[in-house]
Amino acid sequence: MNLNHLFTDKVQSMQAYPVASGGGMIKLDAMESPYTLPEEMRQALGTVLSMININRYPNPNSSSLIALLRKQFNLPQGFDVMLGNGSDELIQLVLLATMRPNSTVLSPAPSFVLYEQYAEVCGMRYVGVDLNADFSLDEAAFLAALQREQPAVTFLAYPNNPTGMLLNKDFVKTVCEQAAGLVVIDEAYTAYADDNALDLLTQYDNVIVIRTLSKIGLAGIRLGYMVGRPELLEQINKVRMPYNINLLTKGAARFMLEQMPYLNEQVEKILKEKVALYDWLAARSDVTVYPSQTNFLLLRCADSTEVFTKLRDEHRILVKNLHGVHPVLDNVLRITVGKAEENAKLREALVAILAV
Amino acid sequence: MNLNHLFTDKVQSMQAYPVASGGGMIKLDAMESPYTLPEEMRQALGTVLSMININRYPNPNSSSLIALLRKQFNLPQGFDVMLGNGSDELIQLVLLATMRPNSTVLSPAPSFVLYEQYAEVCGMRYVGVDLNADFSLDEAAFLAALQREQPAVTFLAYPNNPTGMLLNKDFVKTVCEQAAGLVVIDEAYTAYADDNALDLLTQYDNVIVIRTLSKIGLAGIRLGYMVGRPELLEQINKVRMPYNINLLTKGAARFMLEQMPYLNEQVEKILKEKVALYDWLAARSDVTVYPSQTNFLLLRCADSTEVFTKLRDEHRILVKNLHGVHPVLDNVLRITVGKAEENAKLREALVAILAV
Repeated sequence: MNLNHLFTDKVQSMQAYPVASGGGMIKLDAMESPYTLPEEMRQALGTVLSMININRYPNPNSSSLIALLRKQFNLPQGFDVMLGNGSDELIQLVLLATMRPNSTVLSPAPSFVLYEQYAEVCGMRYVGVDLNADFSLDEAAFLAALQREQPAVTFLAYPNNPTGMLLNKDFVKTVCEQAAGLVVIDEAYTAYADDNALDLLTQYDNVIVIRTLSKIGLAGIRLGYMVGRPELLEQINKVRMPYNINLLTKGAARFMLEQMPYLNEQVEKILKEKVALYDWLAARSDVTVYPSQTNFLLLRCADSTEVFTKLRDEHRILVKNLHGVHPVLDNVLRITVGKAEENAKLREALVAILAV
Repeated sequence: MNLNHLFTDKVQSMQAYPVASGGGMIKLDAMESPYTLPEEMRQALGTVLSMININRYPNPNSSSLIALLRKQFNLPQGFDVMLGNGSDELIQLVLLATMRPNSTVLSPAPSFVLYEQYAEVCGMRYVGVDLNADFSLDEAAFLAALQREQPAVTFLAYPNNPTGMLLNKDFVKTVCEQAAGLVVIDEAYTAYADDNALDLLTQYDNVIVIRTLSKIGLAGIRLGYMVGRPELLEQINKVRMPYNINLLTKGAARFMLEQMPYLNEQVEKILKEKVALYDWLAARSDVTVYPSQTNFLLLRCADSTEVFTKLRDEHRILVKNLHGVHPVLDNVLRITVGKAEENAKLREALVAILAV
């Protein structure tokens, strides 16, 4: 018996989020930090985790972890902090708390795919304002869409994924000012960016900032956090599952956030590697590389699918082929910055592939 | 500026799920196992967790963990298994995948509170069919509601929380047969029950079974699993966040599921303690205790709020006062079975309180 009709039209038509399996490959596809923990830190973490009483439910309030996040990331006073199972869950909760039939979600396009996907799962209409060919945003068109669509939620990734760029800060302020709904500023890549939007929290009532520990070496523990006015987070908190953050994630996050010098050092290494990789790519005439305020680089080549396939099949290097995702991403690869030796192998592979 | 209007009416009106803080108390309120891990097992778990590369995202497929769940819980062949951040998330995903404006969710009432809460968050209508005073279900009334309401999703907790009883299996079959929508059988407490509903999977196309590791000593790691026909789970899987199960939870679950004799032994100890506590309570004339196929007992007394408050404030024992939740729960306490010494303290405290 076919029971597809039991599910919503959107669910029937959609595809599950595709994740490439990178077993045995150099993984430069997922914006992970390439660095594993040093042996001593690894053992200390294991000891900390071994002392957790996993027979008990986690405390839904997470006050000690939140206090640590506040301290280590200089979160502004007077705002609440809410934790999510990665920033993915926080995006979902914002939409669950605001979804009404026919309400709209707005963002630049392309941006993080889950904005559109969850908006549609929630029965909301998604409107994307297309980026220009150079990945800049037509600000006038975006503001016009903001007036026309009156979105319940506007997502601004700052910097943007997958294009790696920061929006103009004055433009972000104008959006906050003119938006009647929530403005969610997604700072997943903030560790690699020159600016952040925490200062907008005090200036505009409708702003929420979402962040994650995933891009600074902790993707596997799944911890995102959201900062906003207590009045806003109080409402969103109602749709949060009380035990959404497990005890092991909490324990690991508390331990690792006490190692900020280590975490910051990894970020510095990635930034240094990124500059070297960028310069090398920029010097080649057969590809175009774009400025990035993240831990990945976008690379446009003559045939990205060919380069992607050869990297994967002949060189065991996995990157992300963005061709087909959006017209501005035609023949674009997204390459996460790896370790020095991984990036060296990538360069060698690109030389071999592009020379043909 | 008041921005409450940005949120749905349901969200504005609802309260966050209340969780009592049990710091320093004997916690008999949350259906947790009272047993912490033996020292050697604790250390071995720490070592396993220390070897996980937390810089990488979890593999969304979780195939090795799912294979282990299949083996250890004798899950039937030919059905898919999907993991959730506790069974809470699985309940949420079923609703997200089926929600349409004005569609209905049906369950006996009272039952697990999140059925109603998430249904309403999802904009669905919740209909509860009231239990009888002795916690049995008026089966005819339920089947009439099933015909009348044509629910998109019917939840049957087997055994039921908070009443602790198993529905009649033939009745469950009739529901599966007559339901046009999904029938979700929630077996959170199955480790403590005489029967389960896995056999219904092969008999009815529209059945999904949801379970959790929370009640067998692993509440802190947050792992639920759902078993159903591949065609059904394929649809629900589309609304799952790809990285919803973190690497530490996966590692801890794999490790602990290899210790089934230990886990089963804890369950046996709890069952034995439950019988002793039940018998002791049943022998008293000033309270009524109810049969239970779970790790908790329901206790009706003259004034449950007074007993709850005295247990908490004078004896530092936290139980759950269900008074006010539903008319059939008037003056009812829910007491999770603890360790022998905890249950002894509970008995002493009850003697002191009830003697007054």
